[in-house]
Amino acid sequence: MHDVIDLDEKLNAFDETWHPRIIGSCNGQYLKLAHGEGALEWHSHEEEDEAFLCLRGRIVLEMRDREVVLEPGQLFIMPRGVEHRPRAEPTASVLLFEPASTEHLGGEGGAREVDVDDQPWI
Amino acid sequence: MHDVIDLDEKLNAFDETWHPRIIGSCNGQYLKLAHGEGALEWHSHEEEDEAFLCLRGRIVLEMRDREVVLEPGQLFIMPRGVEHRPRAEPTASVLLFEPASTEHLGGEGGAREVDVDDQPWI
Repeated sequence: MHDVIDLDEKLNAFDETWHPRIIGSCNGQYLKLAHGEGALEWHSHEEEDEAFLCLRGRIVLEMRDREVVLEPGQLFIMPRGVEHRPRAEPTASVLLFEPASTEHLGGEGGAREVDVDDQPWI
Repeated sequence: MHDVIDLDEKLNAFDETWHPRIIGSCNGQYLKLAHGEGALEWHSHEEEDEAFLCLRGRIVLEMRDREVVLEPGQLFIMPRGVEHRPRAEPTASVLLFEPASTEHLGGEGGAREVDVDDQPWI
């Protein structure tokens, strides 16, 4: 049975940074929440666009040729194939909307990569 | 070029009720904003789940056997095939995530149905 998802309640349920939690599934897409602090690694998703909605704090989405800054209530759609590096200033919480197949850091590995089959639901 | 989408700015750019505006496209899904006042018609989407995130006001999603109430920051995923009637109490504004193919009132017609090929972008 689907229930109401309260974003604040879900955000308060974990504090690990750069480790998204899945909160819902919709047409093969996942809705995820993530906390960030400082910068994540540069990466891209070759086949998937990724929507970021800032819920708390301030997040900068660096791209190789520009950057955008998101504050609460602001959204950006990162097109597939575009290299980016999310950087929280100094902390941020975001809602992500992306295909269930999306690899955390584009599958490029690194210590902070979360395996696509090992993403926690909350 | 993709730009930052400010949800408040977009919401303030129109006031028509029950006539969603598309604000972004992402993996074949649309992100839409809608204002509501009072109740919309009963309908369902046979092939598409529909995520509602309440941004302003209060919206009740009536289903035949229950209802859920959303206030700002609360999300609900209406499963495909489930008959529902959104009812704003008395007004509400929502962010919708749904496939680009989703028909406004499930294609069941009626005076307020917005044709899937005639949805405005803002």
